[in-house]
Amino acid sequence: MTEKENNPAWISRPPSKKSFRSIFKWGSSTDFKHPSKGFLNVIQSELGMDDQRFSRPEKQGETRVEDQVSPSLSPEDIALFEKIVGPENLSCDTYSRLKYSSGKSMEEILALRNQKIENISDLIVHPKNRDDVVRIVELCSQKNIPLHVFGGGSSVTLGLSCPKGGVTLVMATHMNKLVSFNEANQTITVEAGMAGPVFEDLLNNAHEKLNASRAYTGGHFPQSFEFSSVGGWVVTLGSGQASSLYGDAYDLVVSQEYVTPAGTMTTHAYPATATGPKVNDIFKGSEGCFGVLVSVTMKVFPHYPSSFRPFTFMFPSFDKGVEAVKRISQAGFGMPAIMRLSDPEETDVALKMYGLEGGFLDRFMKMKGLEKDKRCLMMGQTQGHPSFSKTVFKQVKKEAKSCQGLYLTGYPMKKWYHGRFSDPYMRDSLNDFSVLIDTLEASVTWEHLDDLYRSVRKYIKVHPHTICMTHASHFYAQGTNLYFIFITKMQALNEFKAFQRGIIKKIMEHHGSLSHHHGVGKMMGPFMGEHLGNEQMGVLRALKSHFDPSGIMNPNGMGL
Amino acid sequence: MTEKENNPAWISRPPSKKSFRSIFKWGSSTDFKHPSKGFLNVIQSELGMDDQRFSRPEKQGETRVEDQVSPSLSPEDIALFEKIVGPENLSCDTYSRLKYSSGKSMEEILALRNQKIENISDLIVHPKNRDDVVRIVELCSQKNIPLHVFGGGSSVTLGLSCPKGGVTLVMATHMNKLVSFNEANQTITVEAGMAGPVFEDLLNNAHEKLNASRAYTGGHFPQSFEFSSVGGWVVTLGSGQASSLYGDAYDLVVSQEYVTPAGTMTTHAYPATATGPKVNDIFKGSEGCFGVLVSVTMKVFPHYPSSFRPFTFMFPSFDKGVEAVKRISQAGFGMPAIMRLSDPEETDVALKMYGLEGGFLDRFMKMKGLEKDKRCLMMGQTQGHPSFSKTVFKQVKKEAKSCQGLYLTGYPMKKWYHGRFSDPYMRDSLNDFSVLIDTLEASVTWEHLDDLYRSVRKYIKVHPHTICMTHASHFYAQGTNLYFIFITKMQALNEFKAFQRGIIKKIMEHHGSLSHHHGVGKMMGPFMGEHLGNEQMGVLRALKSHFDPSGIMNPNGMGL
Repeated sequence: MTEKENNPAWISRPPSKKSFRSIFKWGSSTDFKHPSKGFLNVIQSELGMDDQRFSRPEKQGETRVEDQVSPSLSPEDIALFEKIVGPENLSCDTYSRLKYSSGKSMEEILALRNQKIENISDLIVHPKNRDDVVRIVELCSQKNIPLHVFGGGSSVTLGLSCPKGGVTLVMATHMNKLVSFNEANQTITVEAGMAGPVFEDLLNNAHEKLNASRAYTGGHFPQSFEFSSVGGWVVTLGSGQASSLYGDAYDLVVSQEYVTPAGTMTTHAYPATATGPKVNDIFKGSEGCFGVLVSVTMKVFPHYPSSFRPFTFMFPSFDKGVEAVKRISQAGFGMPAIMRLSDPEETDVALKMYGLEGGFLDRFMKMKGLEKDKRCLMMGQTQGHPSFSKTVFKQVKKEAKSCQGLYLTGYPMKKWYHGRFSDPYMRDSLNDFSVLIDTLEASVTWEHLDDLYRSVRKYIKVHPHTICMTHASHFYAQGTNLYFIFITKMQALNEFKAFQRGIIKKIMEHHGSLSHHHGVGKMMGPFMGEHLGNEQMGVLRALKSHFDPSGIMNPNGMGL
Repeated sequence: MTEKENNPAWISRPPSKKSFRSIFKWGSSTDFKHPSKGFLNVIQSELGMDDQRFSRPEKQGETRVEDQVSPSLSPEDIALFEKIVGPENLSCDTYSRLKYSSGKSMEEILALRNQKIENISDLIVHPKNRDDVVRIVELCSQKNIPLHVFGGGSSVTLGLSCPKGGVTLVMATHMNKLVSFNEANQTITVEAGMAGPVFEDLLNNAHEKLNASRAYTGGHFPQSFEFSSVGGWVVTLGSGQASSLYGDAYDLVVSQEYVTPAGTMTTHAYPATATGPKVNDIFKGSEGCFGVLVSVTMKVFPHYPSSFRPFTFMFPSFDKGVEAVKRISQAGFGMPAIMRLSDPEETDVALKMYGLEGGFLDRFMKMKGLEKDKRCLMMGQTQGHPSFSKTVFKQVKKEAKSCQGLYLTGYPMKKWYHGRFSDPYMRDSLNDFSVLIDTLEASVTWEHLDDLYRSVRKYIKVHPHTICMTHASHFYAQGTNLYFIFITKMQALNEFKAFQRGIIKKIMEHHGSLSHHHGVGKMMGPFMGEHLGNEQMGVLRALKSHFDPSGIMNPNGMGL
């Protein structure tokens, strides 16, 4: 095999067992997605990397994680946990402890590629049921042992790291069951560890699996969907790709059961209530800092897959595209489930990725005056009741056209939809050649969108040889979410952290939220005081003190 | 004038100045609404009251409120408040103190008709601006003086009573201004004391009054709309008649500014955010127990009055009606803004009130098998973007017909819409003849609706000679709100309170929420512990202690 044939030397083999790579690799060990030729060309040209640079993967993390760090919990303490869950539901080897203390943030991936073992849990426990959790929380309270919760493991905000050691509960092992389905109320109650795809599969096949009269959907599809848990959606305030219609996780939760050091509580499932501040909402987004979410009741929606109507438009400029998505979000005719507006740089890459550049469509666009480096791709899909989906589709087209949008059929959207969960796999492929790809997101009002977009982009682009692709997704009448994807050549952890910190500061300076749907974790935690202000941080601290007076629940989480 | 001509002897003159009646009378002093002949017939027949009983009004409350109760605040303390707001913005005469410590609950009306002066404020203060409020909260904190807030004064849950005396802030006098209008974000920021109609008028005429490109609506129309304040909507978690489309007050609030003993804070106005539990939401529904709401940013919606489409249906039974509204609420084609389903008893009264009984329509219904005492009236209105309103209207008709609903045109709905804010005036007319009319409401899931309806109704009807009219209004995919209106002959406060207490207990026993949109106040406060449970009450108590460590903010409010 010549070098040319072997170039780029993408890795398409499963990671070695118990290796660092097996921990940081995205998704399924046997699935891979490498950058398309078009995408790679953009990267090579922008980052100034020739073919040679893609011939030898670096720091692959194939080394085995050896038992090198002793747990700081005493054997007596470990025995107490064993008594609760049994020896088969307990582990304290270094590999397990590292695995369940790691998420998928760039910072963690870089550390793991460098074989760093830091901030890990002392003991991994797989609770069998709610009663186990109650006993574990009691035990940790008595013994002052830090307690963490691991859901799907897709956190990108250091949500799972254990700076003070302690115990980590893995919810997916046993606490992944259906509790009840209530078709009359259009709700489903599941244990917190149920995986996203299992949840959605139950609902899509409700006729057979839940003895229901029809099919349902949960309406929640974060990019991490396949490796996320229902509980994780709720405690981190996730948003799915279809959130513009179905709502964010915050909107989808009807009621919850939490085990906290201050007691176990199940919130009411009233459709609305005016009995003071809503305790049910206070728990949402608490990231394990108040207690352990054991089960949750979620809204479900009638599933009408045949009503899906994809659409794609090209706008002559980002401003025109923004005007269109704003009009669509504010008119009140109903929202498309999915909508995304890419900036010129992302549009350019997208056209290359979908193989549309240089073809008939490209020539057609140029003829219509849609110039490269100015034109912006907008795509999406209407869903829901057939009459609703049809009405919204018609109005979306009308609004888009009134903003000079050129309708490009539903084809590019279908392409995107098909691969909508697989893009994160590309991160590992690029990282293997020291190409760093990471994202930050911020919600923003329409008023400040342009300023935020330009200021953050400018800051990122000042860094030499850096790609910055931005899109708006998740739409509200009051604003949207900006998602910044940056790609650059960087390998040193400190350099990356300084760069990332700079972007976060820029976001805050220009009226962006610290987080739209990634949660806070220990990554955004240090910025929370500045972001919320002392008075509002004080409210969160007061709640923390109430639920968790000894500070054992996810210490340092959310900056608390 | 013979007795016949003078019978019923409805009072249609404004209350005497500074009288008890001028405090408890609903709405404008010069507006009146008396029961129609049809409605009065029902009342006379059910309550066993002949014409004679409506010839002499009783306990009219025309007595002047004399200065009989001295304030317990020292002149020195009063002088400190005077220094802040000036002498013109201060009063401590008994009439003012009674007026601003009274809401419109049946309990308060009965007490005022009996000339009882209890639980009143010591000092009425009209703050000029936010800075005044900051200084007043500081002063009350230093001096340990209870502090209350009076918005529109329409509370029906003893929200305004001052069991520990102290100071009451009247927000409507000065703090009623527009702060800013942000058309890009579709939001408006106003001071908390702005009256509902002023708010809506600004938005409906946004072109001239706000220099906007089009007309908007706030979408919030509680029955008390004309005598309510924007701040009151928010702190009590009100719901408007059009809430099924626009949302409850909880959904309409974007951000808020509160002055609390623990500091002044303005929450962020991001369209969504994943930065932990939402402090903005924690304040909603806090009923002045955490601090004083000084200004609030609310969502606004494009106003399309020409798209309003009223509808009315008659169903053969309550079950069939429930099935229809449930289907409409769950299908996902969008919601009508207004929808109401009356039970057979309310339907009967409604037909009489709208003059439809005995006419052509009545004969037509009988021909169609829609029998009296079984048939149920459902009416509503679609609103919003013309395409949305049209689609929803079409689908509502389809679903209603599939549940044996007979379409009765939009006429009865138009009648209802025309008088939608005026029904509370009838309460005073009936009270003048010792006919008690009161309401309780509870949110409930679809699963428990039937049980709640039948159990509460049964309890009410066990009381002899009692009318119980029930309707469902405010719809969600997960359930609705049941509104119970009971009419009976009762004059003694204790008898009424025991009866009311029994209904509340029944509501809780049968899975109803303690409140759907009336808030908690001091009426529901004592039930909060039982309703929420100790653990969740503990969360509210912890927040109370944080914001208000000395317990000066609305003492006893919400059971805190």
